[in-house]
Amino acid sequence: MRILLVGAGGVGDAFAKIIARRSFFERVIVSDYDLGRAERTIAAVAAKYGDESAARFTAAQIDAGDPDRVASVAREHGATHVMNAVEPKFVPSVFAGALAAGCNYLDMAMSLSEPHPTDAYTETGVKLGDDQFALAADWETAGRLALVGMGVEPGLSDVFARYAADHLFSEIDELGTRDGANLVVRDESGAEIFAPSFSIWTTIEECLNPPVIFEKDRGWFTTQPFSEPEIFDFPEGIGPVECVNVEHEEVLLMPRWLDAKRVTFKYGLGEEFIGVLQTLHRLGLDSVTPVRVRSESGPVWVAPRDVVAASLPDPATIGPRMTGKTCAGVWVTGTGVDGAPREVYLYHVSDNEWTMREYDAQCVVWQTALNPVIALELLATGAWSGLGVLGPEAFDAKPFLDLMSASEASGGYGEPWGMEDRLVRPASAADPA
Amino acid sequence: MRILLVGAGGVGDAFAKIIARRSFFERVIVSDYDLGRAERTIAAVAAKYGDESAARFTAAQIDAGDPDRVASVAREHGATHVMNAVEPKFVPSVFAGALAAGCNYLDMAMSLSEPHPTDAYTETGVKLGDDQFALAADWETAGRLALVGMGVEPGLSDVFARYAADHLFSEIDELGTRDGANLVVRDESGAEIFAPSFSIWTTIEECLNPPVIFEKDRGWFTTQPFSEPEIFDFPEGIGPVECVNVEHEEVLLMPRWLDAKRVTFKYGLGEEFIGVLQTLHRLGLDSVTPVRVRSESGPVWVAPRDVVAASLPDPATIGPRMTGKTCAGVWVTGTGVDGAPREVYLYHVSDNEWTMREYDAQCVVWQTALNPVIALELLATGAWSGLGVLGPEAFDAKPFLDLMSASEASGGYGEPWGMEDRLVRPASAADPA
Repeated sequence: MRILLVGAGGVGDAFAKIIARRSFFERVIVSDYDLGRAERTIAAVAAKYGDESAARFTAAQIDAGDPDRVASVAREHGATHVMNAVEPKFVPSVFAGALAAGCNYLDMAMSLSEPHPTDAYTETGVKLGDDQFALAADWETAGRLALVGMGVEPGLSDVFARYAADHLFSEIDELGTRDGANLVVRDESGAEIFAPSFSIWTTIEECLNPPVIFEKDRGWFTTQPFSEPEIFDFPEGIGPVECVNVEHEEVLLMPRWLDAKRVTFKYGLGEEFIGVLQTLHRLGLDSVTPVRVRSESGPVWVAPRDVVAASLPDPATIGPRMTGKTCAGVWVTGTGVDGAPREVYLYHVSDNEWTMREYDAQCVVWQTALNPVIALELLATGAWSGLGVLGPEAFDAKPFLDLMSASEASGGYGEPWGMEDRLVRPASAADPA
Repeated sequence: MRILLVGAGGVGDAFAKIIARRSFFERVIVSDYDLGRAERTIAAVAAKYGDESAARFTAAQIDAGDPDRVASVAREHGATHVMNAVEPKFVPSVFAGALAAGCNYLDMAMSLSEPHPTDAYTETGVKLGDDQFALAADWETAGRLALVGMGVEPGLSDVFARYAADHLFSEIDELGTRDGANLVVRDESGAEIFAPSFSIWTTIEECLNPPVIFEKDRGWFTTQPFSEPEIFDFPEGIGPVECVNVEHEEVLLMPRWLDAKRVTFKYGLGEEFIGVLQTLHRLGLDSVTPVRVRSESGPVWVAPRDVVAASLPDPATIGPRMTGKTCAGVWVTGTGVDGAPREVYLYHVSDNEWTMREYDAQCVVWQTALNPVIALELLATGAWSGLGVLGPEAFDAKPFLDLMSASEASGGYGEPWGMEDRLVRPASAADPA
């Protein structure tokens, strides 16, 4: 397996640091628009794991927005798989470039949506991933696999959903992805500061898009941003966090392979962060339309959202000043295999202090990058195989979760996952899973 | 009386429209940095009250930041009084220019404060008005009066405080200025929008400065912004509004002439507005330090606070789209003249629909401009007189309140004020005031 990694930003960099510990691949071509960034990632691998390990990596320059350039870099290096680790707006070009070069393909976010032209907050328009699924036949014909949405959320969440459907439930009422964290960033003096662990620009985009929901009787539909707020209690000390509906890939992926009455995604932004986003929206500071502003060199035109992003700490720099954990998982309700009502939360927690120490990577990007590495290993060993455009829930979840949780000493990734039964039931009826 | 009005912004414009109905003055010279703005104000007076009324007004160009220019315009037009209606940062220059020209002087906000260099949130540094009171002897020597803080707050609030001290209380525990409103601004579609009725730039400045409090035993001291939140119930349908400590002139003025154990100012910003200001502060968007921001014409440097101001509707344009009332007043607690505990709220309410209809002026600026007109009339008739630098509470409140509340038909301003007794007391002990 020869992997063309497109993008050496936060997630791409963490991907390289994780896969460097594995032996299933022959080569990773680390490519970036900025060649220096790709080289820095390989230098970090060399520093951490030695030159021999780093010798399996090659740096390359790429333009992710140009499918021809993606294809030519893939061909030049004999890539068998293209791993997309750039912003979602580049999905169509990287996806097309991979197919043109005859490669298999993985990404961690799907092609972007476009709101319904007249009823944006009730009807879907172009949905997340629609542009990719439209080309499924081309991938099948080419005998290649595009495994889409294979990060942590989407990704691991979809694997959990498949596991629940196969092993825990006879009938599913809701597949509810729930993401929450208790991350805190401090300034030099130790005071807590407002510093999102991901791009505020992208977060605004994600949170202000009409959230999408799936219901079996109704199909996909949209709601108002921040709708259906709920307090979800996250495990391992994170505790209760306010979650709201946010547009996310799981809602588009899961119903294609799994049977559930309802599929939702709620993001544990927390009350404070939701308040901040709502205030920015209310004041028009989320706008990407430039406004005229006085400056020392006369009037200039700037987009308020760019000013908000420029005023906050760069998310790439906050890892060392951050503490806490982030949790990704799926809350499943319905009827258990024994016919009794069941409610479980399947989850994986990532601790920033641990990921910084072990991988020199911030926990949110580390947790995202871990899952495509595992998926690639399953594809390399043949444990997973498929053709066309498929989501993670199209594959058997058990080998994935087994490989993830097995210790490094026994060939796994040493990353246990958890399951909480959330209905109090008589001990005699407890599920042995 | 020949009045040089410095500034034809919102308050200056309303001042001209109010004084145009009165006969006590000989001439008003409406001056502005932008001569066209001064001319527009006079044209508005002509349109409303006829050419004869407007003939008592003259337009002039002025630079409020240049004391020599202020003095020369005052001399050129034979001004007897300089009415300062520009931003507080110009107080020192207008104040100095008026004295140099041998004029009397009025303003509606005092010279600015500077925080304590090391203990900004516990100790005062340079206080509001300090730079003006430091020159009191010069004004006395010149035989001229500087009546400072003579708008609505400070201004009418100080008049109410003096009235309470003279007529309602034998001992005052607290003189608490409380300002609140239920103003709502709607967009073209009728939807409520976030649109402050005053400059967000100035409001941020005012609200993030350390609030100042006076206590008889302790003198003046400062606290954290937004400290001591309280829900104050405003009259005439406005209802309960969350108020917080804000730095304001009353706290510096009242203790100089009136005996009270505590003097405070709380601004009824309301929970939403306080939340907005706190969020802007938390995100650094209140900052006046330019940040580097991408733009279509390359990177530019802009102050986030300027971007916030540019993103919101111009307060000068929202009057016609605004409904509701604003209330200014003083909440006084202590011992009544009968020796029993007493608690009263003395107030004046201004209704935006009425001020727009009657004066084509938004209620907040109209209410501010009303009071210096009344004060000038009292000075013109000799009902008020004084030398040096004096606050409104240095003068007898009764003639002011009588002139304000008397009907226009009987020579007054037709603006009643109100008083609420807030302690439930036996009917037999009710105060006849």
